[in-house]
Amino acid sequence: PLYDYIRDGAAIYRQSFATIRAEADLSGLPDDLKPVAVRVIHACGMVDAAKDLMFSADVGIAARRALRAGAAILCDSEMVAHGVTRARLPADNPVICTLRDPSVPALAGRIGNTRSAAALDLWGDRLDGAVVAIGNAPTALFYLLERIAAGGPKPAAVLGFPVGFVGAIESKDALAANPFGLPYLAIRGRRGGSAMAAAAVNALASDVE
Amino acid sequence: PLYDYIRDGAAIYRQSFATIRAEADLSGLPDDLKPVAVRVIHACGMVDAAKDLMFSADVGIAARRALRAGAAILCDSEMVAHGVTRARLPADNPVICTLRDPSVPALAGRIGNTRSAAALDLWGDRLDGAVVAIGNAPTALFYLLERIAAGGPKPAAVLGFPVGFVGAIESKDALAANPFGLPYLAIRGRRGGSAMAAAAVNALASDVE
Repeated sequence: PLYDYIRDGAAIYRQSFATIRAEADLSGLPDDLKPVAVRVIHACGMVDAAKDLMFSADVGIAARRALRAGAAILCDSEMVAHGVTRARLPADNPVICTLRDPSVPALAGRIGNTRSAAALDLWGDRLDGAVVAIGNAPTALFYLLERIAAGGPKPAAVLGFPVGFVGAIESKDALAANPFGLPYLAIRGRRGGSAMAAAAVNALASDVE
Repeated sequence: PLYDYIRDGAAIYRQSFATIRAEADLSGLPDDLKPVAVRVIHACGMVDAAKDLMFSADVGIAARRALRAGAAILCDSEMVAHGVTRARLPADNPVICTLRDPSVPALAGRIGNTRSAAALDLWGDRLDGAVVAIGNAPTALFYLLERIAAGGPKPAAVLGFPVGFVGAIESKDALAANPFGLPYLAIRGRRGGSAMAAAAVNALASDVE
């Protein structure tokens, strides 16, 4: 053959995860988050992502328990929603992204925030006990915290991976400093993205590697 | 307000791109790829991604011309397809991902490759003159090159952003060394992903920042 490469999907996964476990320093993580870190690293190709993970000690237990009980997975972007592997979900959990709802642009104007933030207002009571996965917009994460501060429903866990140059650092630091007792996993700094957020969901949804 | 952050989407874009242009070293790139690099950086939060971009000199012209002429955008993953901003497309271009076609698992078995690679066999003649965006699977990129080597249809341009630890580096190096005269843009190394691939499409699809 012209190119010599591994063509077996299962073998690719095994070798990928073995490489990550050999190279990444996961020693700062609780055992129940190590497989989550491995999948997040797998999604971005950077083993040093492990050192930037921030988390509450209860997030692994809280997110897994919620998912097994059928919690909705609420996503800030279509990319996150489409990165969640349905076959890994323990309870045929609904995976929801409301960003493209036709009411969102007008809603954004009304609340004076981005469409990504406004889309959260359509989550409604589904937010109660849900697993929230933010893979794009810092404003969505800030607005989530604001709504909870105002007495809105609390999710079971927040996976905070907004990415970029305006508000990403600050929104994740705010999540890590949240005074609401929200279980969270996030990546410090500018890095993040839908693939990492979906990988975190996929890791928490099933123990299968 | 509890949190002080920018809530205006347009202002966030402007400030993000200004930060990227201030921090990133784009001097190694032709002028017509600088806006593409800016969007790729925007998608991943890492200004040093610019130094790892590999490209043929003709990729900006070839991809833009194809998109304006209505070329299909063929994606290896649903996440890439859902990251393409439809409003930026110049000719209502079809955005296609065949990975979830029910015939793919059997096809993968038959060709002895991954489902991501097998899905390319369903692109058919749509590959001729298309813009291909690979944001996940190294095997998809390798298989594309193999099919072209075997005399299959040639795309107008290939955006190569497979990510990870097995084959990502090698498949992108093979793309950069392709003897078929394929116009390409890719990111050297393990980094990549659907957000970067979609960002490259979005940048080439429209000059609007």
